[in-house]
Amino acid sequence: MPVNLPSPLSADLHAVPGVRIGVAEAGVRKANRKDLTVVLIDEGAAVAGVFTRNRFCAAPVQVCREHLAAGQGIRAMVINTGNANAGTGEDGLVRARSTCIALARHLDLSPEQILPFSTGVIMEPLPTDRIEAGLPAALADAQAGHWLRAAEGIMTTDTVPKAFSTRISLGGVPVTITGISKGAGMIRPNMATMLGFMATDAAIAPALMHQLATELADGSFNRVTVDGDTSTNDSFVVIATGKVTHPVVTSLDSADGRVLKEAMLDVARRLAQAIVRDGEGATKFIAIRVEGGRTGDECRQVAYSIAHSPLVKTAFFASDPNLGRILAAVGYAGIEDLDQTRIDLYLDDVHVAVNGGRNPAYREEDGQRVMKQSEITVRVNLGRGDAADTVWTCDFSHDYVTINADYRS
Amino acid sequence: MPVNLPSPLSADLHAVPGVRIGVAEAGVRKANRKDLTVVLIDEGAAVAGVFTRNRFCAAPVQVCREHLAAGQGIRAMVINTGNANAGTGEDGLVRARSTCIALARHLDLSPEQILPFSTGVIMEPLPTDRIEAGLPAALADAQAGHWLRAAEGIMTTDTVPKAFSTRISLGGVPVTITGISKGAGMIRPNMATMLGFMATDAAIAPALMHQLATELADGSFNRVTVDGDTSTNDSFVVIATGKVTHPVVTSLDSADGRVLKEAMLDVARRLAQAIVRDGEGATKFIAIRVEGGRTGDECRQVAYSIAHSPLVKTAFFASDPNLGRILAAVGYAGIEDLDQTRIDLYLDDVHVAVNGGRNPAYREEDGQRVMKQSEITVRVNLGRGDAADTVWTCDFSHDYVTINADYRS
Repeated sequence: MPVNLPSPLSADLHAVPGVRIGVAEAGVRKANRKDLTVVLIDEGAAVAGVFTRNRFCAAPVQVCREHLAAGQGIRAMVINTGNANAGTGEDGLVRARSTCIALARHLDLSPEQILPFSTGVIMEPLPTDRIEAGLPAALADAQAGHWLRAAEGIMTTDTVPKAFSTRISLGGVPVTITGISKGAGMIRPNMATMLGFMATDAAIAPALMHQLATELADGSFNRVTVDGDTSTNDSFVVIATGKVTHPVVTSLDSADGRVLKEAMLDVARRLAQAIVRDGEGATKFIAIRVEGGRTGDECRQVAYSIAHSPLVKTAFFASDPNLGRILAAVGYAGIEDLDQTRIDLYLDDVHVAVNGGRNPAYREEDGQRVMKQSEITVRVNLGRGDAADTVWTCDFSHDYVTINADYRS
Repeated sequence: MPVNLPSPLSADLHAVPGVRIGVAEAGVRKANRKDLTVVLIDEGAAVAGVFTRNRFCAAPVQVCREHLAAGQGIRAMVINTGNANAGTGEDGLVRARSTCIALARHLDLSPEQILPFSTGVIMEPLPTDRIEAGLPAALADAQAGHWLRAAEGIMTTDTVPKAFSTRISLGGVPVTITGISKGAGMIRPNMATMLGFMATDAAIAPALMHQLATELADGSFNRVTVDGDTSTNDSFVVIATGKVTHPVVTSLDSADGRVLKEAMLDVARRLAQAIVRDGEGATKFIAIRVEGGRTGDECRQVAYSIAHSPLVKTAFFASDPNLGRILAAVGYAGIEDLDQTRIDLYLDDVHVAVNGGRNPAYREEDGQRVMKQSEITVRVNLGRGDAADTVWTCDFSHDYVTINADYRS
């Protein structure tokens, strides 16, 4: 069961002028599953993407990078589940390209205008024949109002579709932002999550798009982790269709730029947090905030060390305030000159450790009370500077083992 | 159930002249448990230790470092389970010292000649009164033949005691080597494991001891991991009593030095591997060998990335040859210029991936056959150099979650 994640309602998701979505059952891996999604983008949109830093990146990630670099204007995306087309070598690249060629033919575009995405099992050949056979149905299904269908169409071990939408005013003109994401395991995004897509009808200068996508990913998908496993297929794409008639945003530091970026970041963060809330076997949503560091990087390093500790994660599952496990994870995070006598630890508002030792005023029942909640904030103060950063994660339950021991069977 | 770990028999453990061991029930945390062990060392022995690199190191670790540096000759060790005396601040240091003072008084030694060790729950005050009250019984129990009792006395979540012993000939003189270890969770030693103690009656130059302890730890305890959690209390101590009349070993590169170190390394490695075989919830023992790296460090980095991946570990538990998970872990190990098209993967003798893609000759049933074994070797070739290294780990099962969700209750 996802942690405090309301199932999105179709009514709450605003269509984004300039984007249409179609979904079909292609039978990539299993029958009777909507496993093929196409996203059609009107001419003139600005598109940017950020991708996994896993050196074993999947074939579609490599093709996405090439096609974005080609600069011919991205006009469509094709997304399949059931097969990641990763660990597939040269043959995988050929198959990812062939899917783009097939879709380009239908749309009278060049293949470089298509971005391909795959998610699912690693190291099995992508069944391009089935995907290509499914394209006409997906294209026939394309409508502007199909965001929820897309969120469902890209699910793998997700238990709920993940989609958020917001409307802001930019220079008096209403602007729409809508995004979807998927992912529940193999989640420690490094540049982006498994799959995240956002679109706005705002007009954004193409030169600004990569910076925008990077900053959005850094503030959202790059701050969540389920199991520390950075996927081979992480991809996050931002589309600005420019259908709205307001002055083009040419700087993220302008008044309009700040408003737009903040609203987009809010949607991106909700999409990213939704992945953790629906993390495999998750029963709790945990924010880990590390303060008092010398740099944001070292705060994040400590936060991830805590977030990835199986001992910490199982203690959260058990609602056991075994908080020494958190201190141990702080200690092995790799900060060589860390002074343990300056470290404070809080569980929500409960002050657990002071100067590296148990707070004399700490009572086990207070820790227990917080540990039983479904949303918990762990706060660590390193006592060595003014930097801070936050990472979001979930606990580690029996169901995580069950899900991952059974995933392929 | 430990993986292929024969319960050691008292008869196989050789006493080491110059070392006596006594065990008692001090009631540190639970009643009716042998939780207090003293090790008495004859005058003239050379002793060295290596300790955790966790910056949140426990009070006893700090005291051990001080006492070894004091250079007065280590004459005794005191080890308690049930409480780690970690995350206890200044008060923890006072308590660790007070235990040494109490034992020193019994033995007419100075406190700096005592090494204290604690293992158990973090961030609770060490009950020094109970430990000190238990010392007379432990001292009265002291005998040279009590190595198995000591291996039992230092157990926490271990399911079996871990002890190994061997005899070699050094310059025609028989030499004994005996060691014990404990640990099953919070295991990713960095310098040493939770607790490991070895003694030999060989004569080794004191100046050589630290190098010897470091090399033994690097070849054994620093190559195993259960959950990636580097403990606050990792300690490994080597004692050479010098009771045997052969020329003192003054170099590890001499003929005698090589023979002795190899024999000690063999015992240390068996002790370290025993910790993985008895890893919390372990059902499989997995050796991860990474070859073809530019340096041993990068091979180890990749091996640990695989060994710590919850997705890889649950796949081993499920006997599921979901080998793409291993490739993904290779990819996110942090080697920036890794070329995925040069990577080969083997499961025992089965060649799974070639040049970063699925080996056309690979058949799923071959992978399945190996995955079902209780001992598996994963071999990765990075195709970029001549270095290699090996790490030992175990799988990740439902029982791991059960054990760690229930540990304190």
